[in-house]
Amino acid sequence: PAVGLGVRCRSSMAAIAGGDKEQEKKQAVGGGGGSAKDDKEIASYWGLDPTKVSKEDGSPWKWTCFRPWDTYQADLSIDLKKHHAPVTVLDKMAYWTVKSLRWPTDLFFQRRYGCRAMMLETVAAVPGMVGGMLLHCKSLRRFEHSGGWIKALLEEAENERMHLMTFMEVSDPRWYERALVFAVQGVFFNAYFLGYIISPKFAHRVVGYLEEEAIHSYTEFLKELDNGNIENVPAPPIAIDYWRLPPNSTLRDVVLAVRADEAHHRDVNHFASDIHYQGRQLKEAPAPLGYH
Amino acid sequence: PAVGLGVRCRSSMAAIAGGDKEQEKKQAVGGGGGSAKDDKEIASYWGLDPTKVSKEDGSPWKWTCFRPWDTYQADLSIDLKKHHAPVTVLDKMAYWTVKSLRWPTDLFFQRRYGCRAMMLETVAAVPGMVGGMLLHCKSLRRFEHSGGWIKALLEEAENERMHLMTFMEVSDPRWYERALVFAVQGVFFNAYFLGYIISPKFAHRVVGYLEEEAIHSYTEFLKELDNGNIENVPAPPIAIDYWRLPPNSTLRDVVLAVRADEAHHRDVNHFASDIHYQGRQLKEAPAPLGYH
Ligand SMILES: [Fe+2]
Ligand SMILES: [Fe+2]
Ligand SMILES: [Fe+2]
Ligand SMILES: [Fe+2]
Repeated sequence: PAVGLGVRCRSSMAAIAGGDKEQEKKQAVGGGGGSAKDDKEIASYWGLDPTKVSKEDGSPWKWTCFRPWDTYQADLSIDLKKHHAPVTVLDKMAYWTVKSLRWPTDLFFQRRYGCRAMMLETVAAVPGMVGGMLLHCKSLRRFEHSGGWIKALLEEAENERMHLMTFMEVSDPRWYERALVFAVQGVFFNAYFLGYIISPKFAHRVVGYLEEEAIHSYTEFLKELDNGNIENVPAPPIAIDYWRLPPNSTLRDVVLAVRADEAHHRDVNHFASDIHYQGRQLKEAPAPLGYH
Repeated sequence: PAVGLGVRCRSSMAAIAGGDKEQEKKQAVGGGGGSAKDDKEIASYWGLDPTKVSKEDGSPWKWTCFRPWDTYQADLSIDLKKHHAPVTVLDKMAYWTVKSLRWPTDLFFQRRYGCRAMMLETVAAVPGMVGGMLLHCKSLRRFEHSGGWIKALLEEAENERMHLMTFMEVSDPRWYERALVFAVQGVFFNAYFLGYIISPKFAHRVVGYLEEEAIHSYTEFLKELDNGNIENVPAPPIAIDYWRLPPNSTLRDVVLAVRADEAHHRDVNHFASDIHYQGRQLKEAPAPLGYH
């Protein structure tokens, strides 16, 4: 029987039009205390009136979290099977760290892949931000160029955040799921921060393997969509704009684009780890910029 | 008598061509252990061959820390005199925090404005990164949009890092200056991190006032250039590409562009603080995107 995400994660078609929620809230705030007017005045005083951005068809651009020039088409031809065979002890530690995290995750989510995607993206967006920030600080205190890696890692973090913003539209977290996300972020942020300081080689390898698992779980998500266990709802508008999808795209198209992104992150992180394995620093190798 | 930066900060005209240093080092590494070849093989294996980017005139783009689409023309018409008069106790605390930091800084650098600019930019690039990172984590764990503020703050951090990369070319830090930067970054990063968690209102106000001081010290820098105390050397190539300056630009043109950037940061941060003063969150107001 076809059990939609609706039953499992309180998602609804209304949530799919959720891109407008933000706008409505803004108006509500404005209407409530006249602060939208104040806000405009302050923005004008500081010379920061928001620039008008429009889509190719001339309609106003409604997203503030990304702009037309941040959009791209995912490379769906990317090799999904590529795997870094763990050889060294450190590689094996990274591999088994990820594998051991897989088991409780499978148990918790079972086959609720919509929920799973949404929850895991809150974690997936942390490593890029932490790595980018640490490289930024290193670049500053050593007076040296980063070779583009700061930008590459921050772009990864932004891309993962966009995955979250997309899955939020088709799935709604319950209170205990929100609580879990708070706790997991607190632990994971600090663990990754420390891990990256101690061994960026290990940290990037762990992310490489995490992305391999992400590809696997999005493949399972696609299977559930294909066999009708998860309803193939229309793609949320935010996803259509972000990945430049055709207007009639569905959740399946979104998952395909997201999976391709994960495969790209896998490549970037295994590559970064490989550079460290050569005893070199990231800045000595060309950063993988320009994917987006 | 005209005392160039050369005497005071061990800068030299050779350092101005320093954009090539990176390239040379890369080749040296490659030649030393054949690792450039390995590196290419690994990059190819992961499908991450660096994309070829070229300038408008067709010559190859030599900077990895920023790309042609990150370049811009600074808005030199920006009001340099705008000031946020401290009214509340918190404002006054922010104002006097900054004013009290001014005194030891003046004493340390005296009129070595090249050194001063270089050293202070290592600190200036921290708040945007910390703020952007904290907003990113908040957006993730609360499942909410950032309204573009993550990007706006990270762009500020990148812009400040580019200021540093520019001043590095005309000024060379001595060992004790490097040591000082290490220590100051350690303290300032943690202080700003804590400060931003406790009161983003206060944190943004402090940065607003810091930027007002930065405008002042760049104005002093310009005076020293104009009266010949600091030699008006040709602009480093990285600055010409980043701010789209004419080929025969000088250090004076660079300082003008940097000062305009600081005025923009002042506006952004005072605006952010003002939003918090209204009891609202940053995401409820339009982020000042698109300056670049
Ligand atoms: Fe993701
Ligand atoms: Fe990913
Ligand atoms: Fe600056
Ligand atoms: Fe600044």
